[in-house]
Amino acid sequence: MSDAAFDAWMGEVQARMEGALSRLLPAAHVAPARLHEAMRYAALEGGKRVRPLLAFAAGEVTRAPSEKVEIAAAAVELIHAYSLVHDDLPCMDDDVLRRGKPTVHVEYDEASAVLAGDALQTLAFQLLAEQRLADEPRAQLEMVKLLAIAAASRGMAGGQSIDLAATGSTLTLPELEFMHIHKTGALIRAAVLIGAACGSALGAPERAQLDRYAKAVGLAFQVVDDVLDAEASTATLGKTAGKDSRQGKSTYVSVLGIARAKALAEELRGDAHAALESLGERGARLMALADFVVLRKF
Amino acid sequence: MSDAAFDAWMGEVQARMEGALSRLLPAAHVAPARLHEAMRYAALEGGKRVRPLLAFAAGEVTRAPSEKVEIAAAAVELIHAYSLVHDDLPCMDDDVLRRGKPTVHVEYDEASAVLAGDALQTLAFQLLAEQRLADEPRAQLEMVKLLAIAAASRGMAGGQSIDLAATGSTLTLPELEFMHIHKTGALIRAAVLIGAACGSALGAPERAQLDRYAKAVGLAFQVVDDVLDAEASTATLGKTAGKDSRQGKSTYVSVLGIARAKALAEELRGDAHAALESLGERGARLMALADFVVLRKF
Repeated sequence: MSDAAFDAWMGEVQARMEGALSRLLPAAHVAPARLHEAMRYAALEGGKRVRPLLAFAAGEVTRAPSEKVEIAAAAVELIHAYSLVHDDLPCMDDDVLRRGKPTVHVEYDEASAVLAGDALQTLAFQLLAEQRLADEPRAQLEMVKLLAIAAASRGMAGGQSIDLAATGSTLTLPELEFMHIHKTGALIRAAVLIGAACGSALGAPERAQLDRYAKAVGLAFQVVDDVLDAEASTATLGKTAGKDSRQGKSTYVSVLGIARAKALAEELRGDAHAALESLGERGARLMALADFVVLRKF
Repeated sequence: MSDAAFDAWMGEVQARMEGALSRLLPAAHVAPARLHEAMRYAALEGGKRVRPLLAFAAGEVTRAPSEKVEIAAAAVELIHAYSLVHDDLPCMDDDVLRRGKPTVHVEYDEASAVLAGDALQTLAFQLLAEQRLADEPRAQLEMVKLLAIAAASRGMAGGQSIDLAATGSTLTLPELEFMHIHKTGALIRAAVLIGAACGSALGAPERAQLDRYAKAVGLAFQVVDDVLDAEASTATLGKTAGKDSRQGKSTYVSVLGIARAKALAEELRGDAHAALESLGERGARLMALADFVVLRKF
């Protein structure tokens, strides 16, 4: 796949997601307006939409209709958006800048940030239940379950808990990996599997390969994030750069050093590619996306 | 139904729910242990379990198997528990006492309280998706949707947002009612409808009557809460008494006065009874529960 073709696809999915999220979120004038404004502020105009991109790319594997993938991807992205709002709270990571804008509790207030995060999570599950996203209702219940397990105390929320507990202490590489498998990996895995679930059913071996791909990309994403955080400036990143090291958080860079962290990202990219081999052309987009995740500069 | 028979049933459902929640929540020793401890602290050993009682009583209308109602009721109760944890946060109602114990952010810390609330909400949806609760997967998806809509920004979370915005200002009776229909009514309605959904399908007229019952009981519950808050002591209530009036919040008592608030509760009890007429004996438990909600002293 050429870089230009991939870039065009990415821009298309990103624009499409912006439209879908804007349509699926309650309008800003609907009561309670302040809550809905805060939810829209948190979820719109933001980010690279990596999880939706993964859902759409995985949907290509199972020839999923894009109007279904769009809603499933929105559900995953709303979980991601809620987690950012809550993670940025003063009692959590205490961050004031996100995606180049003031964080929700800065722009609104803490109570609105807590409630907006809560309601974004709820909306994610509402979307997965409300419209027909799979051929069988049973398969759709499976999507709800997948998303819930990914976001749960033994998934994303648990990862954030481990992250907070580890602040100020030096983690070993296995501990750091354990944290990120939960904090970011679980939802990235869900994005891939839920995107694929919008199409024809996969056999167990293919699903296992997708899972392996998702695991590799999820970890690679975090490793690259840590490298970028160590190297980039706040302006390029759109969020406070170098914050993790100042807060005494272990990162792949602090544990491995820059060079070995970059080598690990490359290794994970190789593993992601290898996982896709059996899928042939249907996995081309996922392959290009693994490259994007590892080679991105922002 | 005799008072003794009703009390025995209530004790049985409460004990059963304690067991179910304890079993369905992650064990306290499972990592991340602090998060799981906080979740269990928030959800166990607490409250009258009004929503589960409503779910079980509504399940009697449709002859729902109790092992299904138990899980559905646990899902509703986890949403309720999450909302209490977040509502008690310093940036929200800032309360230190709940069900006779320190609130979660006091016993643990604010970050744990935010995360525990988040993960309790997630677990609620996981429970509704994970096990077979209805004859048809489609009906079960409907349960997920019902719970999500009840908890959402146009439901419970929206009610809390309106409540916060209204603090310090005097509400009219319609405004107060609008707030409570969202803040407590929506989830009480969901408890009734989801409990009933675990059994045989209801016709549209019966469902409408259940809905009317749930609406009346939901409002009555809040009216009685306000009366008790105005009259009872902190020790009897297990939470800080008289707090709403000190925080400048409008209540049914501040808007109507004690006597008219009590008369309103009686009127709503009558409406709840009337809604059950067409259900005959199958509605007996719901009827007794409406009496309990209005006549309780704590």
